[in-house]
Amino acid sequence: MKSKIDAVLKQQDLNGLVVLGGSAHNPAMYYLSNGASIGERSLLIKPRGKRAALVVNSMEREEAARSGLRVLDLHTAAIAAAPARPVKVGNPARTQARLLGTLLRQLGVSGRVALAGLQEAGFAAELVAQFNRGRFGATIVFAPDVISQAAVTKDADEVTRIRAVGAKTIAVVSDIQEFLSSQRAKDGVLVDRGGAPVTIGQVKARINLKLAEHGIVDAEAGTIFAQGRDAGIPHSRGQADQALRLGETIVFDIFPAEPGGGYFYDFTRTWCLGYAPDAAQALYDDVRTVFRKAMAALKVNAPTADYQRLTTDFFEARGHPTIASNRATQEGYVHSLGHGIGLQVHEAPSLSARSDERLTPGMVFTVEPGLYYPSRGLGVRIEDSVWINPATRGFEVLAPYPDDLVVPVRKR
Amino acid sequence: MKSKIDAVLKQQDLNGLVVLGGSAHNPAMYYLSNGASIGERSLLIKPRGKRAALVVNSMEREEAARSGLRVLDLHTAAIAAAPARPVKVGNPARTQARLLGTLLRQLGVSGRVALAGLQEAGFAAELVAQFNRGRFGATIVFAPDVISQAAVTKDADEVTRIRAVGAKTIAVVSDIQEFLSSQRAKDGVLVDRGGAPVTIGQVKARINLKLAEHGIVDAEAGTIFAQGRDAGIPHSRGQADQALRLGETIVFDIFPAEPGGGYFYDFTRTWCLGYAPDAAQALYDDVRTVFRKAMAALKVNAPTADYQRLTTDFFEARGHPTIASNRATQEGYVHSLGHGIGLQVHEAPSLSARSDERLTPGMVFTVEPGLYYPSRGLGVRIEDSVWINPATRGFEVLAPYPDDLVVPVRKR
Repeated sequence: MKSKIDAVLKQQDLNGLVVLGGSAHNPAMYYLSNGASIGERSLLIKPRGKRAALVVNSMEREEAARSGLRVLDLHTAAIAAAPARPVKVGNPARTQARLLGTLLRQLGVSGRVALAGLQEAGFAAELVAQFNRGRFGATIVFAPDVISQAAVTKDADEVTRIRAVGAKTIAVVSDIQEFLSSQRAKDGVLVDRGGAPVTIGQVKARINLKLAEHGIVDAEAGTIFAQGRDAGIPHSRGQADQALRLGETIVFDIFPAEPGGGYFYDFTRTWCLGYAPDAAQALYDDVRTVFRKAMAALKVNAPTADYQRLTTDFFEARGHPTIASNRATQEGYVHSLGHGIGLQVHEAPSLSARSDERLTPGMVFTVEPGLYYPSRGLGVRIEDSVWINPATRGFEVLAPYPDDLVVPVRKR
Repeated sequence: MKSKIDAVLKQQDLNGLVVLGGSAHNPAMYYLSNGASIGERSLLIKPRGKRAALVVNSMEREEAARSGLRVLDLHTAAIAAAPARPVKVGNPARTQARLLGTLLRQLGVSGRVALAGLQEAGFAAELVAQFNRGRFGATIVFAPDVISQAAVTKDADEVTRIRAVGAKTIAVVSDIQEFLSSQRAKDGVLVDRGGAPVTIGQVKARINLKLAEHGIVDAEAGTIFAQGRDAGIPHSRGQADQALRLGETIVFDIFPAEPGGGYFYDFTRTWCLGYAPDAAQALYDDVRTVFRKAMAALKVNAPTADYQRLTTDFFEARGHPTIASNRATQEGYVHSLGHGIGLQVHEAPSLSARSDERLTPGMVFTVEPGLYYPSRGLGVRIEDSVWINPATRGFEVLAPYPDDLVVPVRKR
């Protein structure tokens, strides 16, 4: 929750937080600027206990004002920060350090300050080195989790937005399922009315179009629609020119977001077109069983690591290799059970063996067990995104959708 | 050009380049990994004079292999880098520094190394501090322009991709122009067949749908469709609920990209629906005149700053305030003439007064003069993206489009 920022700053003995960069694809800035549409040279300064100030190019002053924050002019600040005798060839990191020092002084922030926001890594390092060498009465210290500690539990309006992206996501999934069902089987592949094979590339183009119709976007160009052997490699995206084959497992993992760096949803189903071979059905049953076990076991305040253990224990008992017994395995269960979602598609909490987090009201996270056997041409994953409702302390799937394995297709 | 990386490393006395992060919305990684679809924990190490190595999660090994680079397993590297006695609560930046040190040693890179790629600023600073305190035989030094020096001139395949995005962009612009022309004028606003006002929000939804049909995306959710007073504020996006009014200047600035962090195009036209009042036409004529003057004057090897001067000189002579005479002006001409485009919507070169760059074959950049009078409810900008063809040394607009001010609409 955003209101926790001050408490986190206090707890870490920090007097302020500086965020660098624009709001597009920069979760820290998007979060604290409330999604104002501002460019890459922007800065945000949050003094502990006071309203944040957003420092932007004057061309962006109106967009910045929508943040509800105090808006300062970057150019005016830059003039105030310029050295009396201008340097001909400047070190851009030193210039930025001086600007930051001037702004912090102006806003009355001294002492320990944290830094956030995506920047070019080399520039960020030089900026901090230059700043801490300067005499600005403040020091940038390493405090990587100020925002993540606050953002790990979501505000009501954030949940509303994630849920809305979820509703749109499953509307697209439903359209794709209907589209596939309306095609025909011929010689083991899916064909359209004209008899031409339906390819993964076509399906992906349709997904992107439907996402646009709903006003959301595949922000990372990462939609997975992978069949057979590719389904057995968790992050294989699938091959565009492949025709869809009947009876193979298709992993369909879709994680769209609001445009320009807003909230994500994350969702996976595994489908077999026409029919499911016994091996696919057996694998699917194991994944669905542990998926339901884990969902049923979710409990407020339980360690997130417990659910990864539940999953690896079950899979091992069923004879599948897992990373619990062999960290390097590429067959069986090879990843963690889930992760938080929000302005990032992967964020805290982590449902992994080494996590020390606990399930806390307000969290939104995925539950996504899977089994992968690329050597056998098989892969299965099921994923829903869950919110812990602070009012009821109950666990709610934000966008429920059926989990049938077989998607029937027309016979002729 | 990518092949220049080694020369730039040599010139700056660097033995290698490290790039951090995934390829989505991370231009440095996208560039050097050739757009491979890899996640946020990835690393790329380019030893000077040798092929780069891409270090990824094993789940992404197949996507990484498409880069054509040497692919290493992140998990294996992490095991090699782990301290003999594991630390219970680790500093993640120290862990990453150790991983990086181990990989550099494995790849035979020592001495001065540059760092690139988008990272959380605080983490990047701590990583470099930890690394340089370690004993890895290498030092990360501040060398911010290794990639930009290479990427400022584009390879032929990059130009092909930018040109393709440009062709799709103007196809969308053309669709929107036709859509507007097919609507009717009524009481000074544009209305549809049913007599309902056409809003900016509707136009933007149509833009996004058409972009998706062409397989490109408004990556920064930044399309500007701003009329009247808002057109007078260069980066105002426009207000979704406003009905389109006849006779007002509409600035339509669109900069879509390939999905997931690929190449951008950048394009602007100013339109008046139905008719242009004299004041709008006069402003437009000034902008179009200097636009054509600047385009006609482009010359290989000329300083980019010359064209900003040409523009401010012309505007000042026509009685418009500009940032040349008053850096803080918010009326008249308030920005620089252009910027490079590529994997970023703004990159080198800069066509600004303080730039020391020169027009070089292979560059792709915008030319975008504008005049802004928010107090008078007016704004005008015209923008094309230009490539300097290395074969002919000629300047080519990558996606030509008419620049008429008035978009006729139906009378009834």
